[in-house]
Amino acid sequence: MPKVNLAELTPKLMPYLGQAAYLQLSFFEAASRLTAEAVDVQDKLALALTSGQMLDKHQQLVAEIRRHGGVPSEVMEPFSARIDAYSAMVRGANWHESLTSVYLTAGLLDDFFTFLAAGLANGNGPKMVQIHALGSRRKEIAEILSRAISADERLGSQLAMWGRRVVGDTLLMARSAIHQSGNAVSDELRIEPVFTEVIAAHTRRMDGLGLTA
Amino acid sequence: MPKVNLAELTPKLMPYLGQAAYLQLSFFEAASRLTAEAVDVQDKLALALTSGQMLDKHQQLVAEIRRHGGVPSEVMEPFSARIDAYSAMVRGANWHESLTSVYLTAGLLDDFFTFLAAGLANGNGPKMVQIHALGSRRKEIAEILSRAISADERLGSQLAMWGRRVVGDTLLMARSAIHQSGNAVSDELRIEPVFTEVIAAHTRRMDGLGLTA
Repeated sequence: MPKVNLAELTPKLMPYLGQAAYLQLSFFEAASRLTAEAVDVQDKLALALTSGQMLDKHQQLVAEIRRHGGVPSEVMEPFSARIDAYSAMVRGANWHESLTSVYLTAGLLDDFFTFLAAGLANGNGPKMVQIHALGSRRKEIAEILSRAISADERLGSQLAMWGRRVVGDTLLMARSAIHQSGNAVSDELRIEPVFTEVIAAHTRRMDGLGLTA
Repeated sequence: MPKVNLAELTPKLMPYLGQAAYLQLSFFEAASRLTAEAVDVQDKLALALTSGQMLDKHQQLVAEIRRHGGVPSEVMEPFSARIDAYSAMVRGANWHESLTSVYLTAGLLDDFFTFLAAGLANGNGPKMVQIHALGSRRKEIAEILSRAISADERLGSQLAMWGRRVVGDTLLMARSAIHQSGNAVSDELRIEPVFTEVIAAHTRRMDGLGLTA
């Protein structure tokens, strides 16, 4: 799937899994908060589904940590503070901003961790790609957002602006994930083409919502 | 399982399912909020598991609504305001109170809806009993609470007091669920033995935590 060659960028498995699993947990936390705060029962049901998919990804990554001999809480712990801070930063000021954030950040970071997986040693990549692909369309969120945006032009421009801020914070997060995965700063140049691809997919997601990236 | 004869108390299927499914959704919302607010990563992982079990119950009840020809959001809608108000009432003032609430309220109401299932017509009872039995031990929550209580005597007496308030609100909730399920006020006398059983199970749960009911 990656058009760029990431074979020389070799994240270490445990830091990769620790970050990926904790990120999915934080997406789950954000999505379930949105479920609880949804006013409409139909939205609640849709968001409960999305939350469940994120939880499922988290739990599959936790199972991978165990399968490779790690203790899940210990493997995730070193990344919790940084990811919590990031989640707070992209939380948004209201329900629609938060919803947009979950959609965009889970989209960007799932793509990014899918690309990173290409560099994992010992044939561990494909399994990680497969896990990140689970429920990756998040169509329930996209449908709620598209409906709201097409009904309210001002909301659309507010969320377009918010999306631009979120993407900045998320790319910084992705960049730091490379170092945290045991790669040197010098690997950053090698990662640039990945960012180009990840941003292109982000732009398609924004377009899909009717927003200008 | 019920020692009392509930055969004459016949809840209608759709209101039964609507309330049961929306209650599980609200337990899920509370448990996932506790997951997000957990400070310890190990607690987070444990509570994410519990949240997943509650979500699973919710989704199985939603599937039953569909299987019987109902539209899930429409079947749940009439009960959402009352259950939301109840959830807010038993939410608690801090993390440990909220944790105690989820443990006790899910315990009480799972038991109650299991008893109620005995009166469902057309052989629908056993399936409902089976769904409510899924992950009904909530042992992850019990373990976190027991640890905290044995380490802090003052917390123990605070939570014992809180537990007494929660059980009162929850029995009122259960009582109203009978009427909402299409039973007459006159059925209340018939339900008294059920309350006795439900409260006995609640007392055992409190004992298990080291709390006086």
